[in-house]
Amino acid sequence: MKLNPQEILETHKRILPYVHNTPMLTSQTINSQSGAQVFFKCENFQKMGAFKMRGAVNAILQLSDEERKRGVVTHSSGNFAQALSLAAKSLNVPAFVVMPNTAPQVKKDAVKGYGGEIIECPPTLTDREHAANQIVLDKGATFLHPSNNWDVILGQGTAALELLSEIADLDYILTPVGGGGLVAGTILATLSKNPSCRVIGAEPSEADDAYRSLISGEIETNTSTYTIADGLKTQLGSLNFPVIRDHIDAIIRVEETEIIAAMQLIWERMKIIVEPSAATTLAVLLKEKERFANKKIGIILSGGNVDLKKLPF
Amino acid sequence: MKLNPQEILETHKRILPYVHNTPMLTSQTINSQSGAQVFFKCENFQKMGAFKMRGAVNAILQLSDEERKRGVVTHSSGNFAQALSLAAKSLNVPAFVVMPNTAPQVKKDAVKGYGGEIIECPPTLTDREHAANQIVLDKGATFLHPSNNWDVILGQGTAALELLSEIADLDYILTPVGGGGLVAGTILATLSKNPSCRVIGAEPSEADDAYRSLISGEIETNTSTYTIADGLKTQLGSLNFPVIRDHIDAIIRVEETEIIAAMQLIWERMKIIVEPSAATTLAVLLKEKERFANKKIGIILSGGNVDLKKLPF
Repeated sequence: MKLNPQEILETHKRILPYVHNTPMLTSQTINSQSGAQVFFKCENFQKMGAFKMRGAVNAILQLSDEERKRGVVTHSSGNFAQALSLAAKSLNVPAFVVMPNTAPQVKKDAVKGYGGEIIECPPTLTDREHAANQIVLDKGATFLHPSNNWDVILGQGTAALELLSEIADLDYILTPVGGGGLVAGTILATLSKNPSCRVIGAEPSEADDAYRSLISGEIETNTSTYTIADGLKTQLGSLNFPVIRDHIDAIIRVEETEIIAAMQLIWERMKIIVEPSAATTLAVLLKEKERFANKKIGIILSGGNVDLKKLPF
Repeated sequence: MKLNPQEILETHKRILPYVHNTPMLTSQTINSQSGAQVFFKCENFQKMGAFKMRGAVNAILQLSDEERKRGVVTHSSGNFAQALSLAAKSLNVPAFVVMPNTAPQVKKDAVKGYGGEIIECPPTLTDREHAANQIVLDKGATFLHPSNNWDVILGQGTAALELLSEIADLDYILTPVGGGGLVAGTILATLSKNPSCRVIGAEPSEADDAYRSLISGEIETNTSTYTIADGLKTQLGSLNFPVIRDHIDAIIRVEETEIIAAMQLIWERMKIIVEPSAATTLAVLLKEKERFANKKIGIILSGGNVDLKKLPF
């Protein structure tokens, strides 16, 4: 486990020429509604619109020149597909993205727009893994997992690192929990910068695999994922789960109506666009006001990629 | 005419405890699409979501203690109604807002939420003026016009002043043109900080009274106002028109489809919420790329108050 506190500081230096040190915003309305002092780290303003850019850049920068020439491959239909495409383009590296043939055209277009080459496959995990392996074999490309990869995890943690550099004495940091890369990276950042800052994961009740994993002590999966937070349907991985299990303060589940209400509050009051996955954090804060009363809370607004034609309000 | 350059600097000092010095944002996508270097002044992040807060605060601060006790009154169904209500509340002053009885409930609720007292009247200009005069007579309240009032104009100009303090060598500043308060205030700011910076007004073709006023030399009105930019339906006033006439570089008209496309570009790429009136500025920039090529452009994103249930895309 890469728990050397120096590691994430070096990661931050490495990626900073290629990512934004995103702004931090506050809202008097949300402070007074929640009873806490909240600092929003705006990864929706990150390049390609999500924190995933950080991990993708870091993972590519850790490859040798020879590996970079042969390219990188991942399977994702979400933000990591776009992140890897843009990060690879910024670094002059070929990027191959395995996507289910059922993926929306808007997501395919986004990947193409950032210069990624799409390989379509049937929409099952086995098919995706098979297609990705084939690219590794055919092209010699390096497979980069969206969340279960140390360099990706360290990259994702730099968002919290920047937040802790601005507000050193945060009591809590809230992040969404999907594949576990962001929350594990955030934990590494707190261990490096402020070990007394607790990390809490926000998860939809409709895809509460991480919550159940903490209880059972094993990586659980979802049998159904009927959540609007489409970035949070994936399961934890073998690398990030132990970090989460050993260091997280809690995983708190929220309902779909709570996610949508929190998202609307951010849009209407903060005038910024965040995706449903990002809003799970504020939903947790508003759901458990007593826990967070009078505390200093960092919230990672993970991304802002939404289809404006399909809004829940 | 209050063209003493010192005046707007003093205005800025006066209001700063009560308003936000809003952030400035940039977008690589919009820079490369426009061929210009663009600096967005985010008045959508201003208190109550629009620059109008600046003028309202300044106008109230210029009243005597005796006047403040008796309160302020305006007629508006838009952002100035909310701005005056919140500014008055911040300064412990009663605020009376005359609104047409046809105004949407959401706007009435916003005014009430900020503590303003609503007086409803039939939806004609004569009725509105009559109702406002009655409040002046009955309560001794001071009437504050939303745009044709020197203290309001100077207040609105402080947004451009802040922008010029960050980027001194702007070639142009683009603002929407509605009642003329923002554009006249912006002109005063450039005359004070950088007289070679040209000011351009953005106006919907569907409500192009200001454009026609520049041609005729007199204040023109609109016979119809079928524009989505609902903040820009009002006409210029006797105080701000001469400033605009004598100093503006141009007023450029844009079509409804151009306003909506610019609004969508800002939402999708900058991940911030702006109202249609604010997007007219970017629509002008994208419409006349040759004029602005390789120039440094300031854009006042005037506000972010939209009904999320009634979006044009």
